[in-house]
Amino acid sequence: MYLGSWLSRLCRGLSRPIGKTPHPIWGSLSRSLSSQRIPEFSSFVARTNTCGELRSSHLGQEVTLCGWIQYRRQNTFLVLRDCHGLVQIIIPQDEKMPTGEIEIKVKTAELLNTCKKLPFEIKDFVKKTEALRLQYRYLDLRSFQMQYNLRLRSHMVMKMREYLCNLHGFVDVETPTLFKRTPGGAKEFLVPSREPGKFYSLTQSPQQFKQLLMVGGLDRYFQVARCYRDEGSRPDRQPEFTQIDIEMSFVDQTGIQRLIEGLLQYSWPDDKDPVAIPFPSMTFAEALATYGTDKPDIRFGMKIVDISDVFRNTEIRFLQDVLAKPQGTVKAICVREGAKYLRRQDVELIREFAAHHYSQEVLPIFLNAKRNWSSPFAKFIMEEERLELTRLMEIQEEDMVLLTAGEHEKACSLLGKLRLQCADLLEMRGVVLRDPALFSFLWVVDFPLFLTKEESPTELESAHHPFTAPHPSDIHLLHTEPEKVRGQHYDLVLNGCEVGGGSIRIHDAQLQRYILATLLKEDVKLLSHLLQALDYGAPPHGGIALGLDRLLCLITGAPSIRDVIAFPKSYRGHDLMSNAPDSVPLEELKPYHIQVSWPTDSEEEDASATPSKNLNS
Amino acid sequence: MYLGSWLSRLCRGLSRPIGKTPHPIWGSLSRSLSSQRIPEFSSFVARTNTCGELRSSHLGQEVTLCGWIQYRRQNTFLVLRDCHGLVQIIIPQDEKMPTGEIEIKVKTAELLNTCKKLPFEIKDFVKKTEALRLQYRYLDLRSFQMQYNLRLRSHMVMKMREYLCNLHGFVDVETPTLFKRTPGGAKEFLVPSREPGKFYSLTQSPQQFKQLLMVGGLDRYFQVARCYRDEGSRPDRQPEFTQIDIEMSFVDQTGIQRLIEGLLQYSWPDDKDPVAIPFPSMTFAEALATYGTDKPDIRFGMKIVDISDVFRNTEIRFLQDVLAKPQGTVKAICVREGAKYLRRQDVELIREFAAHHYSQEVLPIFLNAKRNWSSPFAKFIMEEERLELTRLMEIQEEDMVLLTAGEHEKACSLLGKLRLQCADLLEMRGVVLRDPALFSFLWVVDFPLFLTKEESPTELESAHHPFTAPHPSDIHLLHTEPEKVRGQHYDLVLNGCEVGGGSIRIHDAQLQRYILATLLKEDVKLLSHLLQALDYGAPPHGGIALGLDRLLCLITGAPSIRDVIAFPKSYRGHDLMSNAPDSVPLEELKPYHIQVSWPTDSEEEDASATPSKNLNS
Repeated sequence: MYLGSWLSRLCRGLSRPIGKTPHPIWGSLSRSLSSQRIPEFSSFVARTNTCGELRSSHLGQEVTLCGWIQYRRQNTFLVLRDCHGLVQIIIPQDEKMPTGEIEIKVKTAELLNTCKKLPFEIKDFVKKTEALRLQYRYLDLRSFQMQYNLRLRSHMVMKMREYLCNLHGFVDVETPTLFKRTPGGAKEFLVPSREPGKFYSLTQSPQQFKQLLMVGGLDRYFQVARCYRDEGSRPDRQPEFTQIDIEMSFVDQTGIQRLIEGLLQYSWPDDKDPVAIPFPSMTFAEALATYGTDKPDIRFGMKIVDISDVFRNTEIRFLQDVLAKPQGTVKAICVREGAKYLRRQDVELIREFAAHHYSQEVLPIFLNAKRNWSSPFAKFIMEEERLELTRLMEIQEEDMVLLTAGEHEKACSLLGKLRLQCADLLEMRGVVLRDPALFSFLWVVDFPLFLTKEESPTELESAHHPFTAPHPSDIHLLHTEPEKVRGQHYDLVLNGCEVGGGSIRIHDAQLQRYILATLLKEDVKLLSHLLQALDYGAPPHGGIALGLDRLLCLITGAPSIRDVIAFPKSYRGHDLMSNAPDSVPLEELKPYHIQVSWPTDSEEEDASATPSKNLNS
Repeated sequence: MYLGSWLSRLCRGLSRPIGKTPHPIWGSLSRSLSSQRIPEFSSFVARTNTCGELRSSHLGQEVTLCGWIQYRRQNTFLVLRDCHGLVQIIIPQDEKMPTGEIEIKVKTAELLNTCKKLPFEIKDFVKKTEALRLQYRYLDLRSFQMQYNLRLRSHMVMKMREYLCNLHGFVDVETPTLFKRTPGGAKEFLVPSREPGKFYSLTQSPQQFKQLLMVGGLDRYFQVARCYRDEGSRPDRQPEFTQIDIEMSFVDQTGIQRLIEGLLQYSWPDDKDPVAIPFPSMTFAEALATYGTDKPDIRFGMKIVDISDVFRNTEIRFLQDVLAKPQGTVKAICVREGAKYLRRQDVELIREFAAHHYSQEVLPIFLNAKRNWSSPFAKFIMEEERLELTRLMEIQEEDMVLLTAGEHEKACSLLGKLRLQCADLLEMRGVVLRDPALFSFLWVVDFPLFLTKEESPTELESAHHPFTAPHPSDIHLLHTEPEKVRGQHYDLVLNGCEVGGGSIRIHDAQLQRYILATLLKEDVKLLSHLLQALDYGAPPHGGIALGLDRLLCLITGAPSIRDVIAFPKSYRGHDLMSNAPDSVPLEELKPYHIQVSWPTDSEEEDASATPSKNLNS
């Protein structure tokens, strides 16, 4: 394909339909954007119209167009393209007229640039590797999908701003990204300063600043905030990402939830099914028990059922053993039509997964069309148990049941994973389980305030972050059984992905100090400014942050967050276009008083990220 | 002062005016913000009204207020404050009623937090050092002025977004800040990566990305972009700052200028005098010759006049000497009423300044009320010269003339400085020269494309940046006399301060390569991705960036850009509240393969910033 840039001063339009311009989406997107007025896409520039805009109503007008030559035949016919669409152009020679609603007869034309042979054709059906797309990102951006994604992103953020600023009196405040490290703040990029041994840290979120703004009387804050997190090489994470960051004074959990529901409804793209509000809400305990996860995809059932009571008098030895323990449970999910669509090999893989990742036994029960149970242990199930199971789990012909036994959390967590694996398998076989056009939001609430540290189970760490306020009804437990305290923390889940999270914060300096120093054993000095601020009449406050990249990824159905970011890094944190990060001449390190410590071979293997807790809202 | 946080569920309003709430500015600011609808400041939160909002029309309503106790007497009268204003509250005991348009009779009240004694009172007349303000920034933010500045900033940026997105079809695209160093990119912060010896650089501006977006068909781009520049300790600079960053395809210089004029007019605060458009324009050559600077403050005259011809036959020896040289000129400014307001000591200081910083002699001529000339060299000025000078410079009684002689650029530059010094002196003596309510925008255009390097006068450097397109009429000079080529570069000046700058860019890869490699001798490899992008059908394009912090500083009349930023760094780059930058435990440097090189005492003195050119638009 030859691409050229073309400016044509053009003339009297003509006849016959060419058919629809192929990509009218951002035209109409932007038209619906503002109820007041249609944006003017050709103000201040050489063109009078975009290539996607001309209709038969423009017949006879003199227009100026700018674009790329999409197609050319014998210097007579041209198809001119810009990001709004295509238009056919005829350079007068004879009066031969192709079909078309409108075409443009050239008066003057100027070639503005030439174009080398492209490394790939910019057509959706041309498959290219992601590495090639990222290397030539400026060409990849010309694709319909990337244009749509980035324009939708801009449009949606603009609507969010209108909602927050114009409708609800929020103040957009920019907060610094060059700051001080947070306690336990691994995952933070360091920025050497010109003072020897002194470093800034790039902020993981504006968490501290937004709380300080509440103390400072900016009582309705928001920011579309750039955040930084160094997670090493993790798929579908970016070293810099964007969150819609919100904080309010004098608010409770319900207030934040209603605000976010309104925000999403107001900014939701017109070309998607509208979202229904209020969103359903579920406690963490219920989410874990029913879906085996704190971010359930509630577009489909396949819920986890506790069937311990069914097997109280079982003769199956391993169930007996489990149930004899104080924490022992028996759990199962019923995969509708699983016996019809899943194969023995699928179940073998599932059992291997459970054994390998959870050291758990999973038992399958297949029902054939005649409701016969087929299972390695079917003969040990008593008739009474069978009836009770059928009733509890609403088992039908051709269903499959996956059963496991063990400690509540572990069993639920495993079945939560298997539930998603079974859904994938069923969909591979053509069963529609999760409607991609459906946007199913869910609040998950009543999280525990603390978790025990995996590496040291006698120590506590924050489930959300250390600024989260305890649930008012659990405050009395803080000094006695802190692990039982629930936090005023809420997560927003969309189709099984966490897209936001927040909390009501601690506004009492003494309580904050107790939690940080006594319960979490953090270095309080690093947060002395925040503790001091709470002492000076901090109002009750709370907030939330929405992950904008993830949210847009789900809305556009993009396979990766890299597809909703103009210039993303690869999963290893590289910019494949410019080759960043890159070496730096020694003399440029000098002003920062640092030098490279080149690792020995053995050290290089340990260079992986150390996990740490997250201090953003 | 005792500050407490107070939530009162309140009731039946009452009588008599208290007087106006003191700070109604952001209420009305936000009210005028959106023509469609008044923002709702009390949605989603515990309060029903803000403290600044209640009027006699609310009489009898039951309201809930949240705020800080501003004043308290005997637990009977309270003044409750929030960021919107004050309201008087009476806790029913007796029916004694103070004056007031409205006051609130308490039904229930809840104390939400206590407050320690503040380190300073939050009253505009209470003077405090900036260091103290920055240390307790969260308290300083409660001041009227900081609330006004930050709310105005949010409001103005929102209007800019409406103008760009909703009215003119721009797309808001977020570009990375973790990138690769730019050629000659000292002033760039480094961010060590987990790969030994590999560093990201924090971008000084989105310059390369916005040009790549044009190649990528996002033909009307903008971003409120965070930028980073490490300039060491410089007053009124910040290591991170914000620019309104804009780029368009198929645009020329006039198109960008009209866009920006419309943008500023649309977003201009309602409580300021409106700006008139179009803005006047002046060439760089004219600005230098008339105002001795590329950013003239045109709110007042005192223009530089070339009086070389007056002295062609002078008997004054040092003028003879200068005029005998090929580049020799004689220049002067006339300070209106200077003889009346300026003192001999002032003039002595001026002459010392000129001698010290410019090695230039400055001669004063004072006119007394009877038009007698008083000057060290008055007797050498011939009558004919005196008449011609009076005519050329419109000299009147009580004026003062400052005269210097030398090479054009140097003489102009010196007089440009003296012009501002004299203006300062006159204003100190009560003469109003520069109306602070006047916003005088000016375009400066036709800059040279290249400057000769100060340290090596045979080498060239970009006056703006290396992506600036040459003036079409000067292109033929590129290969013969590049120093004579003008660039398509425009600066926006407000009241003598540069608030923006941009250019039409080079879209021809060959020309860009020639300028970078042959003329500027830059390492083209660092920009190979950009050069390659230009080869793939780059459209003609251009753009601009406005310095948002500086612009708001001028609009609000703030003494420093730190007053329009929520959490600024000190001029040494420190966050005085949290003490960033800070030391980092050795083990946190390890994953980044760096170590600190502690300087010896002698090295420490050289640790100042090295100046370098700037690659932003």
